[in-house]
Amino acid sequence: MPFSPYRKLTPYADAAKQRGIGVYHLNIGQPDVETPPAMLAGVQQASIRVLEYSPANGYPSYRRKLASYYQRVGIEVTADDIIVTMGGSESIFFAFMTCLNPGDEVIIPEPFYGPYSAFALATGTRVVPVTSYLANGFALPALADMERAITPRTRAILICNPNNPTGYVYSRQELTALLELCRKHDLYLLSDEAYREFCYDAPFVSALELPGAAEYVVLLDTISKRYSACGARIGAFVTKNAAVRDAAFRFAQMRVSPPGLGQLLGEAAAGLPDNYFDHVKEEYRARRDLLLACLRAIPGVECPTPSGAFYIMARLPIDDAETFARWLLESFSHEGHTVMISPAAGFYGTPGLGRQEVRLAYVINQDALRAAMGCLARGLEQYPGHLLAG
Amino acid sequence: MPFSPYRKLTPYADAAKQRGIGVYHLNIGQPDVETPPAMLAGVQQASIRVLEYSPANGYPSYRRKLASYYQRVGIEVTADDIIVTMGGSESIFFAFMTCLNPGDEVIIPEPFYGPYSAFALATGTRVVPVTSYLANGFALPALADMERAITPRTRAILICNPNNPTGYVYSRQELTALLELCRKHDLYLLSDEAYREFCYDAPFVSALELPGAAEYVVLLDTISKRYSACGARIGAFVTKNAAVRDAAFRFAQMRVSPPGLGQLLGEAAAGLPDNYFDHVKEEYRARRDLLLACLRAIPGVECPTPSGAFYIMARLPIDDAETFARWLLESFSHEGHTVMISPAAGFYGTPGLGRQEVRLAYVINQDALRAAMGCLARGLEQYPGHLLAG
Repeated sequence: MPFSPYRKLTPYADAAKQRGIGVYHLNIGQPDVETPPAMLAGVQQASIRVLEYSPANGYPSYRRKLASYYQRVGIEVTADDIIVTMGGSESIFFAFMTCLNPGDEVIIPEPFYGPYSAFALATGTRVVPVTSYLANGFALPALADMERAITPRTRAILICNPNNPTGYVYSRQELTALLELCRKHDLYLLSDEAYREFCYDAPFVSALELPGAAEYVVLLDTISKRYSACGARIGAFVTKNAAVRDAAFRFAQMRVSPPGLGQLLGEAAAGLPDNYFDHVKEEYRARRDLLLACLRAIPGVECPTPSGAFYIMARLPIDDAETFARWLLESFSHEGHTVMISPAAGFYGTPGLGRQEVRLAYVINQDALRAAMGCLARGLEQYPGHLLAG
Repeated sequence: MPFSPYRKLTPYADAAKQRGIGVYHLNIGQPDVETPPAMLAGVQQASIRVLEYSPANGYPSYRRKLASYYQRVGIEVTADDIIVTMGGSESIFFAFMTCLNPGDEVIIPEPFYGPYSAFALATGTRVVPVTSYLANGFALPALADMERAITPRTRAILICNPNNPTGYVYSRQELTALLELCRKHDLYLLSDEAYREFCYDAPFVSALELPGAAEYVVLLDTISKRYSACGARIGAFVTKNAAVRDAAFRFAQMRVSPPGLGQLLGEAAAGLPDNYFDHVKEEYRARRDLLLACLRAIPGVECPTPSGAFYIMARLPIDDAETFARWLLESFSHEGHTVMISPAAGFYGTPGLGRQEVRLAYVINQDALRAAMGCLARGLEQYPGHLLAG
C-alpha cells in the first residue's frame, strides 16, 4: 500500500511556511466556496436528544430527498436505489468490493484520480489504465483501445465524469458508446460523478440516465464538492441493479451506519434555492477562464480547455514535474509566496507518463489565482530544469 | 457476504408494530442515554464557513484531547499514536487490513460481536473461534485452548473488553497471560474497548497499559457507546507500533478524511465534568441488576453476572432461540407488547453453539425493562418449544 502522492510534497510545503513563505495551494481539491449556511443550519439547529445510528443505508428521509435531487437532474432513481455512504470514498470501495473479485480487473482511462489504485490494492484487484491524451483534451480513449484492454478478468470500466484530474466532460455519444461496450462484454460501468454540477460549456449527461443503463451502471457520488462539504463524509452508491445493491448493503451493514450529522447536513440541501449552483458555477467558470488565460500566456505551456470539475491539466516546458513542484517549495519564492501544484505522474497508471504534466485546482479566489500564476510563470523562468529552446 | 443476523428478525418486528403491538427492543446496542448536550453544542455552536476535509488521521486538536482522555484512564499514548476512524467499524477494518494478509487467521473467543466475521470475509481472512462458556461467566478460554488454535497462519488474537455480547470484563491476570501468549507466538493483540467506561464491579484494565504492550497491542475504540453518540461515526485506531500505524495511515489516506462534524462532537467531550460517567454507569448498573433479578426469577433461566458493557447473555429453557425470538414477534403479545431479543447463534463462529442462548441489551429505561421482562417470562410460559420438565 503506497503513501498518497500528495503526502510526498507536504513536508516541503510545511517547511516553506515555516520560512515565512506563503503557499498558494493549487494541489488539492478542497474548495474555498462556503458550505451553504442553510445546510449547516440543518445540523446546527436540529433538535437531537440521542445521536443514534442511522439505518445502514442511510435515513429514509435523506434518501428520499436525494432521489428527488437525482430526478431533478434527469436521473430516474428512487430512494430504494440509494445507499448512503461515508463519502465518495466508501462508494468507490463498495463498487470494488461488489463488482470485482480479487484478481479481477477494472479498466480506467488515465490520468485518473490517484486513490482508485489504492482501492484496487486494498481489494486485491487490478487497475488496467487506457491512456487519454492532452492533445485531444483528454477525451475518452478510442473505443478500440478500450476494447483491446478487455481480458477474461475484466469486470468493469470506471470513469470519472466530469473528470478529475483532467476536467474533461464525457459527451452523450461517448457515454452511449461506452455503455454499449459494457453491455457487449457484460461489464459494469462505474461512473464517479462527484463533480456533476460543475459543467461550464454544455449540460451534463449521467451514465445512469442512458437507455439500458439499469443493469450495468453504478453511480458513485458525494456531496463533498457539490456543496463544498468535504468534511461531512457523505456520499452515495446508486444503482438500479438489485443484486449489486444488495451486495453493497451487506458491506453497509458491516460498518453499521453512515454519519448521522453529515446526513442532516445533506438533507438540508433540499432547501437550497433552485439557482444555488448558478453563482457557484459562475465563480468556478471565471476562475477557469482566468487560469487558462494566465497559463496560455506562459511560453511553452500547453493546456486544453477543461469543461468541468475544477481542475486543469497543463504540460509545462520542464524536465520533471515532481522535481519542479518540489523546487517551487524548496528553492523559490516570488513576492514572499510560492505555489504548490500536483505532479501528474501520480494520476497515471502507466509508469513514465505525465512527467511534464501538472494538475492545478482552481479552488482559491481569483486574486490569489492570479498571484499563484505569477509565481508559476516566474518559477518556470528561474527553474534550472526548464527545457524551452531559447 | 452474509446479511446481518439482526436483519432476519426486523421484518417480524415491523409487522408486529403494524399490528399495533409495542416492541421492547433489547436486541440492539443503541443506548437511550442522551448524548451529552455539551458535546452536541460542540458541533451546533461551532463557527464553520467551509466544512473542509480534516487530515486523514483526524484533527490534531481532537487527537490531542483524545490522548489526554487515554492518559487519564491510564493508557499512556500521545496524539501521534492515534488515527481517528469512521466509527469503531473502521478501526476494526484497519486492524484486519494491516495485521493480517488474505488467508491469515485471527483467533477470537466466542461468542463474539457478529460483524467481526463480516470483516474477515471482506478481507479474505479467517476467524478461528475459541469457545468461552456461560458456566464460568464467559471468562477468557483456557490459555491451552487458545494456544492449540494457533497455526502458522495465525497473526492476531482479537478480544472485545468489556465483552459484547457477554458483558465479561477481562482481568489484569487474563490480559497479562494473553499478551504473554501473543509475544511468545509473535501475534498482534487487537483489543476492542468500545465499552471501556462501563465496568460495574472492578476497575477496567486496558491491554495497551500492560508492560510490553507497545509492539503487540492495537486498541480499537469508538465514542459510540462511551458518550451515546453512535451516529457520530467517530472511532480510533491506537497503537504504539509505528509500522502498523503507518500501514493504517495509508488506508486512512485512501478515504481522505474521517467525519468533521463528528470530530467536533468528540472534541467537546473534553469539556464534560469529571464525574460524567458516574451517573451513566449508575443507571446501567441499576438496569443490569434489575434485569438479572427478573431473569433469575424465571424458572429454568441461567445467566452469569456480567461486569461490564450493557449486555446479558442468558440461557433459556427453549428448543431454539431463533424460533423463539421470531415467535415472540409473530405470535405473542402481553398487555399489547412483546420483546425483541438477539438469538446468540449469530455470535458464535462454531455452528450449533448458542442455540438456547440470547443476548439482551439493557439500553431502555427501568420501567420498560421491567415490562419487557414481564413479556419474556409470559412468553416463555406460552411458547410451544419450552423445554422445562413440568
